[in-house]
Amino acid sequence: MNIDWVWLQNQLGRDKVSFNESVRSTHAQDESYHSPHLPDAVVFAESLSDICHTMEFARQYSIPIVAFGAGSSLEGHVIPIKGGISLDLTRMNRILEVRPDDFLVCVEPGVTRQALNDYLRPFGLFFPVDPGADATIGGMAATNASGTTTVRYGGMKNNVQALEVVLANGQIIHTNSLAAKSSSGYHLTELFVGSEGTLGIFSKIWLRIYGIPEQNMAAAAEFSSVQSAVKTVCSLIGTGVLLTRCELVSQQYLEIINRQLGTAYTETPTLFLEFSGTSSSILADVKLAETIALEEGCLKFTAVRIEEERRKLWTARHNAAYALMRSYPGLSHMSTDVCVPISKLPEAISLAEEWIRRLQIRGGILGHVGDGNFHVSLMVNPNDKEDLQHAQELSHHLVDFALSVGGTCTGEHGVGLGKRAYQKAEHGTALEVMREIKRLLDPLDILNPGKLVDD
Amino acid sequence: MNIDWVWLQNQLGRDKVSFNESVRSTHAQDESYHSPHLPDAVVFAESLSDICHTMEFARQYSIPIVAFGAGSSLEGHVIPIKGGISLDLTRMNRILEVRPDDFLVCVEPGVTRQALNDYLRPFGLFFPVDPGADATIGGMAATNASGTTTVRYGGMKNNVQALEVVLANGQIIHTNSLAAKSSSGYHLTELFVGSEGTLGIFSKIWLRIYGIPEQNMAAAAEFSSVQSAVKTVCSLIGTGVLLTRCELVSQQYLEIINRQLGTAYTETPTLFLEFSGTSSSILADVKLAETIALEEGCLKFTAVRIEEERRKLWTARHNAAYALMRSYPGLSHMSTDVCVPISKLPEAISLAEEWIRRLQIRGGILGHVGDGNFHVSLMVNPNDKEDLQHAQELSHHLVDFALSVGGTCTGEHGVGLGKRAYQKAEHGTALEVMREIKRLLDPLDILNPGKLVDD
Ligand SMILES: Cc1cc2nc3c(=O)[nH]c(=O)nc-3n(C[C@H](O)[C@H](O)[C@H](O)COP(=O)(O)OP(=O)(O)OC[C@H]3O[C@@H](n4cnc5c(N)ncnc54)[C@H](O)[C@@H]3O)c2cc1C
Ligand SMILES: Cc1cc2nc3c(=O)[nH]c(=O)nc-3n(C[C@H](O)[C@H](O)[C@H](O)COP(=O)(O)OP(=O)(O)OC[C@H]3O[C@@H](n4cnc5c(N)ncnc54)[C@H](O)[C@@H]3O)c2cc1C
Repeated sequence: MNIDWVWLQNQLGRDKVSFNESVRSTHAQDESYHSPHLPDAVVFAESLSDICHTMEFARQYSIPIVAFGAGSSLEGHVIPIKGGISLDLTRMNRILEVRPDDFLVCVEPGVTRQALNDYLRPFGLFFPVDPGADATIGGMAATNASGTTTVRYGGMKNNVQALEVVLANGQIIHTNSLAAKSSSGYHLTELFVGSEGTLGIFSKIWLRIYGIPEQNMAAAAEFSSVQSAVKTVCSLIGTGVLLTRCELVSQQYLEIINRQLGTAYTETPTLFLEFSGTSSSILADVKLAETIALEEGCLKFTAVRIEEERRKLWTARHNAAYALMRSYPGLSHMSTDVCVPISKLPEAISLAEEWIRRLQIRGGILGHVGDGNFHVSLMVNPNDKEDLQHAQELSHHLVDFALSVGGTCTGEHGVGLGKRAYQKAEHGTALEVMREIKRLLDPLDILNPGKLVDD
Repeated sequence: MNIDWVWLQNQLGRDKVSFNESVRSTHAQDESYHSPHLPDAVVFAESLSDICHTMEFARQYSIPIVAFGAGSSLEGHVIPIKGGISLDLTRMNRILEVRPDDFLVCVEPGVTRQALNDYLRPFGLFFPVDPGADATIGGMAATNASGTTTVRYGGMKNNVQALEVVLANGQIIHTNSLAAKSSSGYHLTELFVGSEGTLGIFSKIWLRIYGIPEQNMAAAAEFSSVQSAVKTVCSLIGTGVLLTRCELVSQQYLEIINRQLGTAYTETPTLFLEFSGTSSSILADVKLAETIALEEGCLKFTAVRIEEERRKLWTARHNAAYALMRSYPGLSHMSTDVCVPISKLPEAISLAEEWIRRLQIRGGILGHVGDGNFHVSLMVNPNDKEDLQHAQELSHHLVDFALSVGGTCTGEHGVGLGKRAYQKAEHGTALEVMREIKRLLDPLDILNPGKLVDD
């Protein structure tokens, strides 16, 4: 059947449907090593009805429709590997409703997390989930993103209250009420969160928001080995110290950060910590954390009181991956993402260190270690077979270990293309149920085909 | 087809399959006003393989299979309205594995929450979710139960880490890893939590557990009206005071409690509060809560320091519904269960008070008000048409209001038979998706038929 693009242009308006080469090529890839593939067209949705018309069109011609937020995902999620439409949602960037008393906000999917937090600040409120990039809320919900504050507030699954979803069959559904809890019907919100554009397009998102804590304090705890840093984390969690952030930055990474960002951190494995609360409770927490860290062999524990200094520390952490990318221009970024039960973290990180050494990997370890999640962030030359093979070998070893101890191949980045091969090993017979749900909701396989549960 | 019960008896062992009248009749009802219906047989599963054989048998003859835990649910969930097998899981009551360092425990579905907490206490750990009854973990997971501590720890949806589920087709699946977070595959755990035995039978459950707080303190805050009590709750939540429990007990209820349990609480609307933490943080929290309560018109704020006294207070709260039942022997218990965004709670409770007065309801208001969830617990004569009608009228008014402000018809008890009529109004087009998922996973409609998404 000849695809009648003119119909779509007439429905939406000419400026919303682009065949331009450079527009298509920015929608052909994400921020990773995966090979790009061009979409046939890029549609810039500005409203629910734009999404619905595009879905109707894709259904009619059985062509793929791949949602696109900030395109910052790391496993090829947004690559239209079978062509079709890249549905860009960044123009749907309105904040629709804030309910301070109910700690809820309703946004369109293209709102970015930084724009949201700028908007919420005057209310004394914030949205805690913070992947490294300035991702869109739609993309974050679709990948079940999490970040540095997840140890305290949870990730997207815990913070998406409700979704408006456009299904492949054109139906628009609302997945939950606005009550703090409910035992009514099946829990669809969590089914759609993390579905990577394969089950439906999110057109509206209700999020849980929080009061900005009265006071925050950060600390940098230096160690002679990654091992003792990680053991400290296990002790901190075990003692119940209230941590708002708990990040491991490896020596290799601190070298890169110092070089690229002009900072002067001691180049040794370091925990970046954050504490939040009232002025009295916070001091007690910091003191307890310091005592535990020193017992576990911490070399130096520096509490950061001044707001300016605290910001600097987290800016350095948030820009770490970008600093790495800048250190190796021309190479591509890859990131492992295993997450293990916290008691297995020391062993997992030992293994990572060993393979980084053996395979002479360009990169280092960064991790949301309070959740048992860490990354080996590394730079590869996707055109150099051996180089790519080494990177993949490292990833295989880590995933194998994680699965053998009851962990997951991906704590936060998602499956996309890069983790499909592990779905069977991780989910076993449950994968068939996932595939049946996919077939049920998308019988024509038009929603981001070839990803997640596909093999 | 003639049902060959002997086959089942041979598979499982004679003592596990009962046709005894009194055994069947204890499995014909729950603790509510819904009319009983006898199962054809009761199967007492003792292992995964018993569940699998029973499922195979039910599938072969297309007969219903209705899971039965403690039978404490309140909306007719366990009533085998179409006969078939009541699958009693209480003999599967082993605690299989505790992992203190990972804050995880693995249990069989028939373990009760009190047995679990008795077991965990020596580890310094506990499982927080506490519905009023000593329910089974399987039943709690299947109804997405919550309770007095949900304001701090969340309900079952937040605390079930992973499930082993026997599906209608006989497959056994595992719904999640043991990592603290994951973006791998679709989130099936949450889909099954709250599914009320209609999508599969839980044969094993991994739960998140917590360190027992260093210190707990309770408080009773007396008010002249339910309204000012509820406004106090909204202020407490807004200020970010860390509450572990936040329960409203109405004047009618305190009268009943004093009479039945021999206590001497002032008979006026009262908030029962709990605070947990370290000895220093807790005093600051209690002080702040007292200040806020007094500002909102609290008549008397009594902090309870002595452990013995604290226990007494929560025992009174937990036995409130049973005290009501004892006050009206021969009558049946009904409980409304709406949950609304917290800002709408004062209005919802006003409405409830008005209808209690107008319809001369025997009972009162009890509520997990920190979550926007409250019950009118009341006693009805199911054989007196007008009495039942009044109770149902009250329920209708509350559900209508809740849905009109974005709330839910059931915050924690679940749908069962009693809330089916509201599913369409609450979920709209999403109900069809729920029904399709039900048909997908249970094409023969053998799993607890006639409940939840059925109409
Ligand atoms: C330097 C760097 C650091 C990072 N750090 C983290 C981190 O700490 N934690 C973390 O979780 N991630 C991290 N990421 C990955 C990335 O930021 C997250 O995956 C993010 O959630 C993606 O959001 P996005 O808006 O870029 O989505 P996109 O990349 O545009 O899309 C991601 C997926 O979501 C789908 N999608 C997008 N919008 C919708 C919608 N409205 N409806 C349905 N599906 C939709 C897409 O089809 C695609 O499958 C990092 C990335 C980079 C580059
Ligand atoms: C006095 C009183 C107070 C209560 N207070 C609360 C409260 O505060 N909060 C609250 O949430 N509830 C409350 N309840 C309701 C009840 O305790 C909960 O619904 C509880 O979770 C039911 O657990 P159960 O073991 O009794 O399950 P049952 O009643 O035996 O079963 C409930 C449902 O779960 C299904 N089921 C049971 N086991 C399994 C399994 N292994 N696999 C799959 N499905 C299964 C059953 O088929 C049924 O649909 C109260 C009840 C009473 C009597």
